[in-house]
Amino acid sequence: MKTKAYAAHSHTSPMTPYELDRRNLLANDVAIEILYCGVCHSDLHTVRNDWGETEYPIVPGHEIIGRVTGHGPDVTKYQTGDLVAVGCLVDSCMECDQCQKGEEQLCRHEVTETYASPDRLTGAITQGGYSKHIVVREEFVLRVPEGLDIAKAGPLLCAGITTWSPLRTWGVTTGSRVGVVGLGGLGHMAVKLAAALGAHVTVISRSDSKRDDAMALGADALLVSTDADAMDAAADSFDLIIDTVPVKHDIMPYVPLLDIDATLVLVGQLGPLETVDTMPIVAGRRRISGSPMGGIRETQALLDFCAANNVHPDVEMIRMDQINEAFERLEKADVRYRFVIDMATL
Amino acid sequence: MKTKAYAAHSHTSPMTPYELDRRNLLANDVAIEILYCGVCHSDLHTVRNDWGETEYPIVPGHEIIGRVTGHGPDVTKYQTGDLVAVGCLVDSCMECDQCQKGEEQLCRHEVTETYASPDRLTGAITQGGYSKHIVVREEFVLRVPEGLDIAKAGPLLCAGITTWSPLRTWGVTTGSRVGVVGLGGLGHMAVKLAAALGAHVTVISRSDSKRDDAMALGADALLVSTDADAMDAAADSFDLIIDTVPVKHDIMPYVPLLDIDATLVLVGQLGPLETVDTMPIVAGRRRISGSPMGGIRETQALLDFCAANNVHPDVEMIRMDQINEAFERLEKADVRYRFVIDMATL
Repeated sequence: MKTKAYAAHSHTSPMTPYELDRRNLLANDVAIEILYCGVCHSDLHTVRNDWGETEYPIVPGHEIIGRVTGHGPDVTKYQTGDLVAVGCLVDSCMECDQCQKGEEQLCRHEVTETYASPDRLTGAITQGGYSKHIVVREEFVLRVPEGLDIAKAGPLLCAGITTWSPLRTWGVTTGSRVGVVGLGGLGHMAVKLAAALGAHVTVISRSDSKRDDAMALGADALLVSTDADAMDAAADSFDLIIDTVPVKHDIMPYVPLLDIDATLVLVGQLGPLETVDTMPIVAGRRRISGSPMGGIRETQALLDFCAANNVHPDVEMIRMDQINEAFERLEKADVRYRFVIDMATL
Repeated sequence: MKTKAYAAHSHTSPMTPYELDRRNLLANDVAIEILYCGVCHSDLHTVRNDWGETEYPIVPGHEIIGRVTGHGPDVTKYQTGDLVAVGCLVDSCMECDQCQKGEEQLCRHEVTETYASPDRLTGAITQGGYSKHIVVREEFVLRVPEGLDIAKAGPLLCAGITTWSPLRTWGVTTGSRVGVVGLGGLGHMAVKLAAALGAHVTVISRSDSKRDDAMALGADALLVSTDADAMDAAADSFDLIIDTVPVKHDIMPYVPLLDIDATLVLVGQLGPLETVDTMPIVAGRRRISGSPMGGIRETQALLDFCAANNVHPDVEMIRMDQINEAFERLEKADVRYRFVIDMATL
């Protein structure tokens, strides 16, 4: 099936209209008309080939909200007309211990990502949600529960699940002391979700300028990381710090803020950190970890939680032809907090 | 009370005979004649002022085995003649949550270390076990259980507990897949203790030359870290890696060896690491941590475990006047695997 899309043709070229072939429906495939697609920093990294693995042309987009337009004969969960979502993953081996546990993002045989991965069936490079239609096997399609605002929900599929998953992995609950570093697409979801789970949430920021924004998102406090006295006073006071900074940075200011056995979890940056010193890690038995996206079951749980608790991303709606401008603004962190493309404009 | 000792008077001077004052017995103090004292890499770091905090003269030594020679009136646990041990800690606040949990090494108000710490009572700098006698409050004195070879047991008090504590913190048990990096004082204890707990133990070494040594200590396998094929084949195959390397090094070769949610725990190095790349940490939800020594209750459990299971450090006995030569050999990792000073030679 032919479908309209927006693609990058090289790491320096702008996104331009493109026509894409989606595979014919297999027995367990769901055909989806895409209504909204969030704009993730990973989209930009991929388009710019920051990770060195992009094959062009590439259609990014993995925060997809749409409506079922058809399905193969074996599909049982969805019917034409259903509101559905697709996130970062569209396939996995389905057989390894991780897939069996519902942790497909950690599949032993490499998960198939929504774009820029080799399709397990055709070998072609997967193409993402900056397009009119997509075809996804049933097991990787999520249900949009009643109560979720479909125009805003897209960013839950990546920014949401990427912060939700560590909140669940590290057992955040009522009274947990959670710090959030970086207040972009991921960071603002970390604040909202941790607050909705009942945690005491502190945004850790280089200046006081984001205090009002942090509070509006549901944070209980803002800690200014350049204020040495405040940082000293906050030593040992966090159970979990979610570090959403997407570029090379220094985690050492944050490590002493962790309580004994507490964890700083990296979710934003893939690549080298500034120098890590073991002293506060060893002395305080502190932990540094990372977390990639989340599994399908966990993502469905997130959507259901957000619908039940009226948690939505803060989004700025754009037209498809504004995507290049949006990328430029994204690089300057000039968005509160996530762009969503209205795919009706494609 | 005056006692003989060996001290360093500057970061460049050799260890020389020294006379030391021990405090008069307080009500809950135990007076101990030191019979054996292990030689730890920290002793050398402190003597050389590698951590920049040494006050001279300094008497190192925190792997102490001795016999009770007297005690204050309130002491209930020990009697004159008892065989006892003293490790890295001689005091703490005793009141914070960590002390109450028996994790005095993580005391919120700074644990008092056996040497080079300000004494909580006198303010004087504590002086360690390279001496004939020591006075320690009862709560920080350990019992040497029957069955433990007192000439070999000293290194359990630091090398032993520093590797035992993470084995317990991270729940190592029968069948756990444990890697050990660095086969010195700490590493050889990590192998012995993990094996005694029933783990499958792999020594990870730059060459194959330590294979026989590793097997003799109880390891099940040796993995050569310079063998790219072997390292690839070992990806995702460890539940816990104990990294005992005492100098700046690169942990990145070891991180991909960790299974999902598994931990690399640093116990040897205090200071900056070579560059840490977040990619395998985030992608595999792997964890980097550290662990300092262990608490008194845990150390007693270790001594009891070693007595019951006949686990002893491999030691080379030296005379007190051989300490400078021993330090030189320690710097070249020329000892299998721990020097112990026969304090009768002082």
